Amino acid sequence: MSNSYGTLFKITTFGESHGLSVGVVVDGCPAGLEITAGEIQRELDRRRPGQSNITTQRKEEDEIIILSGIYENKTTGTPIAMMVNNKNQAGKDYSHLEHAFRPSHADYTYTTKYGLRDHRGGGRSSARETLARVAAGAIANKYLKAQNIQIASYVSAVGPIELKENYAALDLSLIDSNKIRCPEPATAETMIKLVEETRKNRDTVGGVITCVIKGLPVGLGEPAFDKLHAELGKAMLSINAVKGFEYGSGFAGTKMFGSEHNDEFYTDENGKIRTRTNYSGGIQGGISNGEDVYFKVAFKPVATILQPQTSINDTGESITLEGKGRHDPCVLPRAVPIVDAMAALVIIDFLLRQKAVR
Amino acid sequence: MSNSYGTLFKITTFGESHGLSVGVVVDGCPAGLEITAGEIQRELDRRRPGQSNITTQRKEEDEIIILSGIYENKTTGTPIAMMVNNKNQAGKDYSHLEHAFRPSHADYTYTTKYGLRDHRGGGRSSARETLARVAAGAIANKYLKAQNIQIASYVSAVGPIELKENYAALDLSLIDSNKIRCPEPATAETMIKLVEETRKNRDTVGGVITCVIKGLPVGLGEPAFDKLHAELGKAMLSINAVKGFEYGSGFAGTKMFGSEHNDEFYTDENGKIRTRTNYSGGIQGGISNGEDVYFKVAFKPVATILQPQTSINDTGESITLEGKGRHDPCVLPRAVPIVDAMAALVIIDFLLRQKAVR
Amino acid sequence: MSNSYGTLFKITTFGESHGLSVGVVVDGCPAGLEITAGEIQRELDRRRPGQSNITTQRKEEDEIIILSGIYENKTTGTPIAMMVNNKNQAGKDYSHLEHAFRPSHADYTYTTKYGLRDHRGGGRSSARETLARVAAGAIANKYLKAQNIQIASYVSAVGPIELKENYAALDLSLIDSNKIRCPEPATAETMIKLVEETRKNRDTVGGVITCVIKGLPVGLGEPAFDKLHAELGKAMLSINAVKGFEYGSGFAGTKMFGSEHNDEFYTDENGKIRTRTNYSGGIQGGISNGEDVYFKVAFKPVATILQPQTSINDTGESITLEGKGRHDPCVLPRAVPIVDAMAALVIIDFLLRQKAVR
Amino acid sequence: MSNSYGTLFKITTFGESHGLSVGVVVDGCPAGLEITAGEIQRELDRRRPGQSNITTQRKEEDEIIILSGIYENKTTGTPIAMMVNNKNQAGKDYSHLEHAFRPSHADYTYTTKYGLRDHRGGGRSSARETLARVAAGAIANKYLKAQNIQIASYVSAVGPIELKENYAALDLSLIDSNKIRCPEPATAETMIKLVEETRKNRDTVGGVITCVIKGLPVGLGEPAFDKLHAELGKAMLSINAVKGFEYGSGFAGTKMFGSEHNDEFYTDENGKIRTRTNYSGGIQGGISNGEDVYFKVAFKPVATILQPQTSINDTGESITLEGKGRHDPCVLPRAVPIVDAMAALVIIDFLLRQKAVR
Repeated sequence: MSNSYGTLFKITTFGESHGLSVGVVVDGCPAGLEITAGEIQRELDRRRPGQSNITTQRKEEDEIIILSGIYENKTTGTPIAMMVNNKNQAGKDYSHLEHAFRPSHADYTYTTKYGLRDHRGGGRSSARETLARVAAGAIANKYLKAQNIQIASYVSAVGPIELKENYAALDLSLIDSNKIRCPEPATAETMIKLVEETRKNRDTVGGVITCVIKGLPVGLGEPAFDKLHAELGKAMLSINAVKGFEYGSGFAGTKMFGSEHNDEFYTDENGKIRTRTNYSGGIQGGISNGEDVYFKVAFKPVATILQPQTSINDTGESITLEGKGRHDPCVLPRAVPIVDAMAALVIIDFLLRQKAVR
Repeated sequence: MSNSYGTLFKITTFGESHGLSVGVVVDGCPAGLEITAGEIQRELDRRRPGQSNITTQRKEEDEIIILSGIYENKTTGTPIAMMVNNKNQAGKDYSHLEHAFRPSHADYTYTTKYGLRDHRGGGRSSARETLARVAAGAIANKYLKAQNIQIASYVSAVGPIELKENYAALDLSLIDSNKIRCPEPATAETMIKLVEETRKNRDTVGGVITCVIKGLPVGLGEPAFDKLHAELGKAMLSINAVKGFEYGSGFAGTKMFGSEHNDEFYTDENGKIRTRTNYSGGIQGGISNGEDVYFKVAFKPVATILQPQTSINDTGESITLEGKGRHDPCVLPRAVPIVDAMAALVIIDFLLRQKAVR
Repeated sequence: MSNSYGTLFKITTFGESHGLSVGVVVDGCPAGLEITAGEIQRELDRRRPGQSNITTQRKEEDEIIILSGIYENKTTGTPIAMMVNNKNQAGKDYSHLEHAFRPSHADYTYTTKYGLRDHRGGGRSSARETLARVAAGAIANKYLKAQNIQIASYVSAVGPIELKENYAALDLSLIDSNKIRCPEPATAETMIKLVEETRKNRDTVGGVITCVIKGLPVGLGEPAFDKLHAELGKAMLSINAVKGFEYGSGFAGTKMFGSEHNDEFYTDENGKIRTRTNYSGGIQGGISNGEDVYFKVAFKPVATILQPQTSINDTGESITLEGKGRHDPCVLPRAVPIVDAMAALVIIDFLLRQKAVR
Repeated sequence: MSNSYGTLFKITTFGESHGLSVGVVVDGCPAGLEITAGEIQRELDRRRPGQSNITTQRKEEDEIIILSGIYENKTTGTPIAMMVNNKNQAGKDYSHLEHAFRPSHADYTYTTKYGLRDHRGGGRSSARETLARVAAGAIANKYLKAQNIQIASYVSAVGPIELKENYAALDLSLIDSNKIRCPEPATAETMIKLVEETRKNRDTVGGVITCVIKGLPVGLGEPAFDKLHAELGKAMLSINAVKGFEYGSGFAGTKMFGSEHNDEFYTDENGKIRTRTNYSGGIQGGISNGEDVYFKVAFKPVATILQPQTSINDTGESITLEGKGRHDPCVLPRAVPIVDAMAALVIIDFLLRQKAVR
């Protein structure tokens, strides 16, 4: 139980990798928002397998079907159910994995937790679940854009290759200009090369996604437990393969002295209250302060590798496994729209919560 | 709104730094748990100001008062309300801060969010709120210990001084043996020196707390959104001054290849399923796998420094501020019991959720 | 927002009367429960239109499609999504209702609340939403039956015709033996006659459903706000057309003295604690006491009548409306499985909540 | 677990009858609301024991203490904790009840549910818990009055004596003009006589409270499960001793035909949309339609009677019990402010929820 996220703008996802479909119910979306299936599809396409040679080559259409809650391209205030039918899996044989516990996958924990599992393609633990989030996030994002809130995520590290530039020095309109989704072309190229090499080595590699949120009003986030960054952290950590989250100065900030780290307030030429630095990451006391919110999300290397690995089966016997077929050597480029979506879901929820009391 | 945490074991905290009292209501604690005020007080004492020369010298007794829910030293299943009366603040003059926005504090964001604020001692944004969490966590921890679940947190970095040893190489019984709460004596001494120096410089310094949870059964944590590490992350990020969270291999894991990072399963001599490495940090697919859970929490340097700083007041005019009185040069040693408490609150909630369905 | 019900066994419904489909996501169902589509279909068939001459003659198949969460006829612990595609509406013309506010319907309130509405067949306010509840309830009921908990609902009044017998004097196996679903054949016949007459008069009539829950363990229900009867009340009042709820002695009990109303405790021949009377309706202090739980649910007459009525349109102008087509003259027989379902959803949720803490 | 009520304006109550104190935390109250302790005390005084010869003669001051969340008589947006210390119980001997299961009380169910209980004065199951609701309701009501929403509750039946007049025919300003809180003086007198007689007979008697809510905007209430009347029903049924709830035409409406029951819409002389009758009770499709909301709440006779009764103890042995001391012969007059409070809590929560999305 916990397939729901959000307090007022609440999503509930469902579906397994190889069941009939994967979908989501969005409850609490304000009525009257104009949105087309095409706008949702666009985000799904950014997450779709097979979009380039550095992602999995599985061909999945992932075509969105809107079941309810949108009438004549407007949200009606009633629950918006959407789903994508699973195709291209029919007849595929997963019987060799029925009793296997793949290393660093959720096979063992699901089986122990539930007493049984749908093993086909990872079942519910498959990252395929995230397409439901992307669909819901597309709706949230449409709402936010109308309020001049912009969310942009990009790949800032692949393995040891780190983008040197801070987000402020980048042209974020270039994110989708290359297949790794890093807005700095030279670094992007190096990253892509590493991924291609990794793929040739039948291996996988991790990385970092940076997300920037601009245009937030002052006052979003709720003390004490639902601080803005605490919810962002939870939302990001709930994405498959995520191992860490930091915002503002993050872990590096722990090495600073208070006299360096404090963000000095001033009033700018338009009478707006600003800070000269932004180690706070746009959040103070858990509440947005009007500066850019930015954070980093750490992704581990994908667990499925095309190499033989020793593991055990569900009776505890030693087995040898070897990933087959088409898998992602690096999940980062396809994870960018997922980070976008989860960020949008967090922000819209806080926006509505704040509207309720002011 | 959000002064509550937990699904089944739910706490709601209340109170401002300089109001009548700070407290907590614990709802959902199983009945029949033996617990004394002394056991709760012991944890509060670990968090108490004035416990050493490297923490604030404010003298606060922080004496726990149990208002309800515990009868003859046993929980009754009804809500447990506890509070600590605020003393030692009477007559203190905070008028110089009434209109000031202190740098990297929550003065500006609270004032904008709510339209007004109780400015005395930071009001609700004060870390004094965390004593309510520590009291609740003491109850949770008592329950967990009876199930052989051990939680241990310690300071693993202060500023640039990092403890080199992995938790497994440390004697965790030494955590409280020194005032910085680092279980490695030599490193502890260096850390303490840095904090003392920082205090002399009228400055503050950040650091990192590592937490280890041993003895978890397999199966805790809920896909998709309430993954075990996602809730741990949220809980930690909700603590004042926290800027980052990582578990298992964390950010360092992003630089690894899948072939290095995967944790190989095997069956040990007792027939127990184990992994040879633990980059997963005891969690796979958001669910505990029986290995140790470990994570790191990044704390920024305390914002209040005893140096003059430029800022603005609530009409936007430039002012100069200077911290006065007794403040923590480094929040880390006092934050250790807070991390312990939040970890306990996360784990007990998942334990109860799992009991519900199995 | 509020298309979800339940704390641990949580359902979220979606869909409009004339959208693509109506469905439900069940989150929190224990894993390993055996359930077939046929078992769910059976309950849907009890709710289906067109099942007799005293219900609407619309022909709807209402065939359940299981999208996720059930694998090889066992629940997997992951969310169970189910839906029914809407058929038989294609091409139907609802344009005469697009701007009309039908008397005692939700047209006016939806339009004002949301600023727009899907007017076709009542949209989201249609009782068609309840099929989602019946599907979810069928799963809950399967779980409860395995624990020897039996839920039985029946029609105890239609208009002024009231069943005289108390539930204990009835043979509840006869509920489905007639089309009005009243287990006393003679009364059933009178009721049916009244409904048939009402239909001829192009009118509608209300009534009462009684529900009995046998086999509950002692201890279900949560003080203070989630008392067992409070949740039952909310669940019943959330069904379309319900106007009242009473349990145990109900409104009649208000006329009694305490000396009459108190239920005397005794220990029966098997050493079981019992009460000699059951004015408490099986619930004391909001918690089940092991006696039968019973309650009554009041249904108003259906608002759609096949007679001309004066109303207004969305610009406030006076109009004349007349219901057309095939409608229920009395909703009671089709509401019986809905009451069953909601009762099951309430009980399973409390069962799981109780398991969590004991 | 369930000592909380509300989605956005959320209260959590705590405390046992004879513990240190009974209190409440209100989370989510909008900031800037002016409220004094005196305004809260006024409502507590309406609920206070000993206010007249027809209520219990226990002398309890029930003095409100505001612990947090209100600064200089304004809410700050942070949690408002309030409590009343329990007095007058010291030294009282409850040992004769330690092992007894009083008829129609919660002694047996609590003991079985939790495995133990605080037996003194009913512990947590005591209606003393409701003072926490009244304190919270006073704050909610202050907010509602500022929006021209008026809530008025009154005693409409005591035992068989029923107030004949509909609420619209009554002068609701007279509610507090007599000690039974019935606004029709002649009926009030008859009711009072019955209560006095009942008290002389060492017995107790039930009754009905009617509540009217005027001034609601159109659009409050949430389909599908959190319908306005469903939440009102739950809130009322969660009050001690309540056995039933009906709104609008209620149970009587089940005997009507649709052609009689439908509320005809029209546009009044001010261009406002109204209905000619109000069988709907101001709610259509679960959403307020701008007409008066009205409902009835059934209270059973108090279980504690000053007569010998046969019961059992916790080992199942037969015992004889006899209520002692000062008890309410009729809970109705003191329940009026509780109904007011719960109604206010329901309405403010829906108001805030509606603000969030419009």
